[in-house]
Amino acid sequence: MSTAREKANHRISSIKSLLCVGLDSDPEKIPEVFRGCPDPVPAFNRSVIRATKDYTAAYKVNTAFYEASGVQGLLDMEKTLVEIPQECLSIADAKRADIGNTSRKYAQAFFEHWPFDAVTVAPYMGFDSVEPFFAYTDKLVFVLCLTSNAGSQDFEEQRMLDGRPLYEVVLEHVAGWQRSGNAGVVVGATKSGQLGELRRKAPELFFLIPGVGAQGGSLEDAVREGADPKGESALINVSRSIIYPSGSFRYVEEYEAAVSAEAEKIHNAMRLVL
Amino acid sequence: MSTAREKANHRISSIKSLLCVGLDSDPEKIPEVFRGCPDPVPAFNRSVIRATKDYTAAYKVNTAFYEASGVQGLLDMEKTLVEIPQECLSIADAKRADIGNTSRKYAQAFFEHWPFDAVTVAPYMGFDSVEPFFAYTDKLVFVLCLTSNAGSQDFEEQRMLDGRPLYEVVLEHVAGWQRSGNAGVVVGATKSGQLGELRRKAPELFFLIPGVGAQGGSLEDAVREGADPKGESALINVSRSIIYPSGSFRYVEEYEAAVSAEAEKIHNAMRLVL
Repeated sequence: MSTAREKANHRISSIKSLLCVGLDSDPEKIPEVFRGCPDPVPAFNRSVIRATKDYTAAYKVNTAFYEASGVQGLLDMEKTLVEIPQECLSIADAKRADIGNTSRKYAQAFFEHWPFDAVTVAPYMGFDSVEPFFAYTDKLVFVLCLTSNAGSQDFEEQRMLDGRPLYEVVLEHVAGWQRSGNAGVVVGATKSGQLGELRRKAPELFFLIPGVGAQGGSLEDAVREGADPKGESALINVSRSIIYPSGSFRYVEEYEAAVSAEAEKIHNAMRLVL
Repeated sequence: MSTAREKANHRISSIKSLLCVGLDSDPEKIPEVFRGCPDPVPAFNRSVIRATKDYTAAYKVNTAFYEASGVQGLLDMEKTLVEIPQECLSIADAKRADIGNTSRKYAQAFFEHWPFDAVTVAPYMGFDSVEPFFAYTDKLVFVLCLTSNAGSQDFEEQRMLDGRPLYEVVLEHVAGWQRSGNAGVVVGATKSGQLGELRRKAPELFFLIPGVGAQGGSLEDAVREGADPKGESALINVSRSIIYPSGSFRYVEEYEAAVSAEAEKIHNAMRLVL
């Protein structure tokens, strides 16, 4: 059986796409046409997946959007997870981490109970807080490094005693924590320049790159700077600009056509660079 | 209506206790006597609450232990939340944080869908990742600062360019982020000395102090160094050494008696110092 990393890279090289579609599915934002369904969010996600799967290497489920609806939301997440095509990487964007005995439970949640291929984790509490995730050598663990939001200036970009920013220290640690290539980092596409620099410093890490689209990062720069020399080991996440196309839709098919067109456009832009 | 902070301090001063009981309830670890119940984890938590409520100021639900069982676990969490006495602070130990639009969803999950009084959050991504929690001025938001685990050395205790450790920079920011006194920090009891120093630097923050008991921190030091001059605005969490007393129990009443004895012992030790 192949590892999550191998699966992701196989898909990336097969279809020449680094696209990760973010299923940040907000019950209050999904188009009217899905609201009458018995399960609006899973129906919406099924449509997104159907419309994007030919262009997509990974799907990222943002757990916050499901937890906000409590148990119903988690049931929606379960129904969504089973719809993610086997050839695509499934990522739980959960940003968890806690002391060791607790992180073991989070790892159990997102790698066993809900069998995601990959998870995002937060580095603040250090090695023993993420080690239980890295213990799953067949999975991929993305550690927050340099994020795409304004708050990255507060701590991530602050300089340490040796002059390096905190995010570089995190990167260095993550490179040392990996087991059989199961480590990755989250580096925002809004941080052009830094993305390429971090890629060069950590050629062996997998990069998960948010911040393209609604958050304003350049897609072409993200592909050029984020991928490894083979054009692999990177995923560029797009959420809102794919799943919430402008316009109103009378039929599910119209919505899917709009989503598909946007995903195809992004895929074409990626193929040109790769 | 009083704020979460006022409620916690009223309870602390009424019963002279800083005790927070951690409901880290692991289905694989709960005593045999609960395993036959239709809902073992809620039954176990009900017993813990019944046995400790006279000595306790707060209950902390560690979300990892519930998420590990998926939807069933979250149903257990809901059944537990309604059992927490109104006069005690309810804390979701969730350690969440993400970009703003996502953190809004997490805040909605833990302050609205599940109406906890307080939540723990992670600081790595900076202000806009925790602001949506602070927007709830009647709640309490505990930001990770100096944690009780070995991994705190990896980043939290590393020195910044100005010589201060990262956790001090976090403390200073959190003090500036609060609204109407709704900010707190997590500082481990295993960090004696530093706890008192941080308390003096941030007299206005609420302190949530894990690390006593199974993790080895001194209870008396934690009370002396963690509480404010009025003996308030601090909670000392104890989980495993209360909820998993040694011995085997043929009856629920025997288990509750053992739990109650341990909670009373801790309460007495706290009253002596306060």
